[in-house]
Amino acid sequence: MAPSKQDVKISIAVAGLGRMGKRHVRTLLNRVSEAQVVAVCSTEQSELEWARNEYKDWGIQVYDSYDQMIQHSGLQAVWVSTSTDVHASQTIAAIEKGLNVLCEKPLSTDMEEAKRVVEIANKNTHLKVMAGFSRRFDASYRNAKAQITEDAIGEPFVIRSQTCDLIDNTGFFVRYAAKNGGMFVDCCIHDIDLSLYYFGDVIPKAVWAVGTIAHHPELKDLNDVDNGVGVVEYWGGKIAYFYCSRTQAHGHDVCTEVVGTKGKIMVNLVPRLDNVTVAQKIGVSHKVQPEYWERFEDAFATEANEFIASIVNNTPVPLKLELGLMSLKIGWALQEALLTGERIRFNEKGEQLDGGSARL
Amino acid sequence: MAPSKQDVKISIAVAGLGRMGKRHVRTLLNRVSEAQVVAVCSTEQSELEWARNEYKDWGIQVYDSYDQMIQHSGLQAVWVSTSTDVHASQTIAAIEKGLNVLCEKPLSTDMEEAKRVVEIANKNTHLKVMAGFSRRFDASYRNAKAQITEDAIGEPFVIRSQTCDLIDNTGFFVRYAAKNGGMFVDCCIHDIDLSLYYFGDVIPKAVWAVGTIAHHPELKDLNDVDNGVGVVEYWGGKIAYFYCSRTQAHGHDVCTEVVGTKGKIMVNLVPRLDNVTVAQKIGVSHKVQPEYWERFEDAFATEANEFIASIVNNTPVPLKLELGLMSLKIGWALQEALLTGERIRFNEKGEQLDGGSARL
Amino acid sequence: MAPSKQDVKISIAVAGLGRMGKRHVRTLLNRVSEAQVVAVCSTEQSELEWARNEYKDWGIQVYDSYDQMIQHSGLQAVWVSTSTDVHASQTIAAIEKGLNVLCEKPLSTDMEEAKRVVEIANKNTHLKVMAGFSRRFDASYRNAKAQITEDAIGEPFVIRSQTCDLIDNTGFFVRYAAKNGGMFVDCCIHDIDLSLYYFGDVIPKAVWAVGTIAHHPELKDLNDVDNGVGVVEYWGGKIAYFYCSRTQAHGHDVCTEVVGTKGKIMVNLVPRLDNVTVAQKIGVSHKVQPEYWERFEDAFATEANEFIASIVNNTPVPLKLELGLMSLKIGWALQEALLTGERIRFNEKGEQLDGGSARL
Amino acid sequence: MAPSKQDVKISIAVAGLGRMGKRHVRTLLNRVSEAQVVAVCSTEQSELEWARNEYKDWGIQVYDSYDQMIQHSGLQAVWVSTSTDVHASQTIAAIEKGLNVLCEKPLSTDMEEAKRVVEIANKNTHLKVMAGFSRRFDASYRNAKAQITEDAIGEPFVIRSQTCDLIDNTGFFVRYAAKNGGMFVDCCIHDIDLSLYYFGDVIPKAVWAVGTIAHHPELKDLNDVDNGVGVVEYWGGKIAYFYCSRTQAHGHDVCTEVVGTKGKIMVNLVPRLDNVTVAQKIGVSHKVQPEYWERFEDAFATEANEFIASIVNNTPVPLKLELGLMSLKIGWALQEALLTGERIRFNEKGEQLDGGSARL
Repeated sequence: MAPSKQDVKISIAVAGLGRMGKRHVRTLLNRVSEAQVVAVCSTEQSELEWARNEYKDWGIQVYDSYDQMIQHSGLQAVWVSTSTDVHASQTIAAIEKGLNVLCEKPLSTDMEEAKRVVEIANKNTHLKVMAGFSRRFDASYRNAKAQITEDAIGEPFVIRSQTCDLIDNTGFFVRYAAKNGGMFVDCCIHDIDLSLYYFGDVIPKAVWAVGTIAHHPELKDLNDVDNGVGVVEYWGGKIAYFYCSRTQAHGHDVCTEVVGTKGKIMVNLVPRLDNVTVAQKIGVSHKVQPEYWERFEDAFATEANEFIASIVNNTPVPLKLELGLMSLKIGWALQEALLTGERIRFNEKGEQLDGGSARL
Repeated sequence: MAPSKQDVKISIAVAGLGRMGKRHVRTLLNRVSEAQVVAVCSTEQSELEWARNEYKDWGIQVYDSYDQMIQHSGLQAVWVSTSTDVHASQTIAAIEKGLNVLCEKPLSTDMEEAKRVVEIANKNTHLKVMAGFSRRFDASYRNAKAQITEDAIGEPFVIRSQTCDLIDNTGFFVRYAAKNGGMFVDCCIHDIDLSLYYFGDVIPKAVWAVGTIAHHPELKDLNDVDNGVGVVEYWGGKIAYFYCSRTQAHGHDVCTEVVGTKGKIMVNLVPRLDNVTVAQKIGVSHKVQPEYWERFEDAFATEANEFIASIVNNTPVPLKLELGLMSLKIGWALQEALLTGERIRFNEKGEQLDGGSARL
Repeated sequence: MAPSKQDVKISIAVAGLGRMGKRHVRTLLNRVSEAQVVAVCSTEQSELEWARNEYKDWGIQVYDSYDQMIQHSGLQAVWVSTSTDVHASQTIAAIEKGLNVLCEKPLSTDMEEAKRVVEIANKNTHLKVMAGFSRRFDASYRNAKAQITEDAIGEPFVIRSQTCDLIDNTGFFVRYAAKNGGMFVDCCIHDIDLSLYYFGDVIPKAVWAVGTIAHHPELKDLNDVDNGVGVVEYWGGKIAYFYCSRTQAHGHDVCTEVVGTKGKIMVNLVPRLDNVTVAQKIGVSHKVQPEYWERFEDAFATEANEFIASIVNNTPVPLKLELGLMSLKIGWALQEALLTGERIRFNEKGEQLDGGSARL
Repeated sequence: MAPSKQDVKISIAVAGLGRMGKRHVRTLLNRVSEAQVVAVCSTEQSELEWARNEYKDWGIQVYDSYDQMIQHSGLQAVWVSTSTDVHASQTIAAIEKGLNVLCEKPLSTDMEEAKRVVEIANKNTHLKVMAGFSRRFDASYRNAKAQITEDAIGEPFVIRSQTCDLIDNTGFFVRYAAKNGGMFVDCCIHDIDLSLYYFGDVIPKAVWAVGTIAHHPELKDLNDVDNGVGVVEYWGGKIAYFYCSRTQAHGHDVCTEVVGTKGKIMVNLVPRLDNVTVAQKIGVSHKVQPEYWERFEDAFATEANEFIASIVNNTPVPLKLELGLMSLKIGWALQEALLTGERIRFNEKGEQLDGGSARL
């Protein structure tokens, strides 16, 4: 007799035990009934100690080596939640071990490396390999997509999107920034991806970006900023413009507007923590989510469930791995525009015409 | 060696497979990692057939008898989600079988019977018995409570609360109404409970209620209404007033305001489905949750998790069973005021001074 | 040759120079181009001194006697903005002098006296006599009325309305309360009037009210409260319920909801001063209008303009004087219910069946 | 004896009787008690006929020649509300006649001409000459400014502002566009001005712009677009970015956000006509102002009153005429960037380093 579906569990390991890695373990334990966490790994001593203590009664093996972890007996999938600089190599290693992989975006800070991951994944179609663009799993962004598909706003032609984080005074962000590829590659990439989500297949024609450092002077040496504005003109008369910030006072403030020929859809224009509003002498107020976790916790659970379901049912992953490549190309061009002050143009095939020496 | 915590599962059965029963099964399967659904029961042939088909690969035994179900081998807990008229007897039967019980509110449409359930539960303190007031598990209502406790609005003295449902043209509601005790016992009881939640220990002094039938003429024969307004004056200068409706055009519209000496807290004044807003020729609009399920799905998951955790950890249930008694008393008085047109008074001990012949 | 329309000015006097009287003068000077303020009066020495100084260059005669003021040469109209206890006698005196009158609501705290004013006005149809229910001139309330008339929400059957004022710690309110007839006659009368506005011709069937004193213990001796909740059942299955407060922490919070068979219209559910919202560490907030003046300044200007225009063009006044009588009757019944704790019933002609000894 | 202040009236004429000219006449008649409209002019036959009929009882002389109108006996001031191409010459002519002038923005589509107006005005300091930037008179924008001045958000460093108009299918907009200097000079100039209002004295460092034609193909021949996005980097690490549109489906949608080191101020993020919200089967909705008039009617009245008061009291005009020059320079650079696809840089003195051949 087949086992009860309540007993079917994909064995998964989580690589990286930073803030997000820990949350992914919790999501898998509490909200993904078809998964079982069998292993985690980290290279940070403090994280390893924490994990050995925390997970000792949970049947989770703690590794200090990714390579050893992926040899864990019976392992079927890995959630790569390490720093961006090792995303690609770890994803490739897992694929080569025959494991399914959910890799945090972006696949790489290097365009060529990212392409290599996609190629290898495409040669292993029996495995589910997906890059995590969490917003595509958010109920509101999906509702917006559904309404656009149903012609609620006509043909979309302008998109505004912002990713604004609460200011971080712990030093975490600056340490993190050193490895993430810069504002437009690490942070704005979500907004770029949303512009592709809502516009469909579009090719960049020109981009420009400016930025400023409002709070973190250390970023200067990293060639980065903590606030940036970027504009992408796509071929065909479509425009996307973005604002990214690491220094908001009030919390995590992510919103998107899609303007079409017959209307406009807005997602989360004024952020709020929950349904509570308070009226006091000082006025009427509500709280804001402190972090993207509070805003997108459900989206991460949906992402994990849909990824695991694609393994259980052997169906396509909900997001094509290739999706990340175009976002990355545009992110890099914006980052280059930011650094050089020049606008960067592309031809109608999407080939970059200006600059590009730095990276590609 | 102790089993991994990932393997610890409380065996639970769900009684009743109506709309809510089915949802509770799903919640338990997907969002309560410490529970395992081992059985369900119903007396409806169509529900039984549906369940046998739906759950056949899930290791869930389908019973057509509650009494047989609670004898299921290894069963530890029951979620009573049947119609109100059997809540009490099923809860008592489960307690007598040595099972933990999560019973949908209200415990009974009969005050004395409800008291009996509480008495029996209090004699079986090794078992976890709880009545489900789902709003007490909602993040927003809890945030409001926390802020009130932290003195954000001073001393609360007026509460407005409403429970307004989307109009139901399927006939379901009227059939359901026949067994539920009436508008103020079945529906308003959530709002009454919230007034006790935020006011703390208060005793009713007088109540009055009026109602109207806007859409469901069949309710006249059931001595009920589909829209009602009730006011409760509590001893000590506190006032709660309520609006309940079964006939809203736009969706599920549940909101609460707590007025204090230094401010006011509002929960969900303008209902919205998600973070999406659309601007079109006709104006700016957003969707509303169609049902309390969409509004309170997370609260039900929290409720289930906290109930199960109280069994696993042998800690007190999050809500005292006695809580439901005062709400029920006030609900009945409002219902009596509605039917008689009289105001109903109570003395300072909470003993009803007017009317009361009908039920108590 | 006829004078230019820019030179046509109705000569008007303002009786009473309290907060509202002063504002009415300002409204007339700045926003009513067809009016010219020729006189004001007060019995308060401080107000007289203030006015003599303030208005000395404005061609406005300051009187210490209402009777003398209405004999001012060329005077055509009076705006009665004194305390409620002299509204009726001053209105009658002005009518007898052949003057048009705009009288602040309510016409009187005494039902019989109010009726007398209406009778006298009806015998002088060449004069424009109107009681000021400012909300009926507010753009939002009018928009709501227009949408209801266009069937946006079907047949209205439940109305919720509240008039909540900012707490006043100056002692002004308590002094004022002594002459105003009580919470439901002075304050709730606006909400009662709105229920008549949106329901149309309805007759009360039963009312009940409760109240509490949250901040002003002196009100006990005045048989009044500073927070009250009242319910009115109208014949024909319509219900209105009200909340009035003098003790809000956050400002002037006036809102109204009209529930119909096909939808609900909300006016000003969450009050805000203007279009500004601020996001700070503590959350997202906006300011609230401190007083009804900031909320209804435009409505007062519209009211004054429409009243003056009815004189210039000899057209009917925008609001029938009789309107105030039914509101007053309901207000008194609610006040009586508040004091006695009894519900007050009416027959289908609107004749009061219970109580009534106190006043009528 | 001095005349009563109620009789003091500045004699003013309105040049241009298009949509705005008519509205200005109405504003002056109804909301500016210190002004008297003595003359109007137009070169459109239909407007002249309309005015002669409409104003015949109002003591307003109707001219078909601006030059004759400014010779009207006793005239003290002119409100220039003609098309942009004659703003400068008419303003100069009025100054030379010794008249005070309120001129609609922008002073000119030509930088040099605009400078000439400023020079001439500065040589006639006994006259009040002002360019109308209506948003600076809006209560919300002023409240935002006041809060920023009081340090509510720390140091502002990013501004987002948009001016989005309802789509116009009458052909009016395209005819109008032919004379207005283009999207960034005519429409975005308000947003540019707001960035200067909130940032204070800032110098542009670089700008870029892109645009698209969504509805009005005729604009191609005018070298213009109907939707445009522009970014301005100011020296000192400040950034402003703008979106202008002539093709919104839902109405007039003008909003502004100012991000500072300690918070963010938002003005009008979600536009709404009034305080009315409707809940219906399709969801919860509210209407939007159709035009800037409904949004800024009060601001125009304030502008007119403050301008007239500066004449009556011989005080400085509320806005310095020079203000418009910098906005115009930036607007032109954005327009050039739009047409050429190049980013335009400025040195630290604000001198344009790239392009500029077209106009300057």
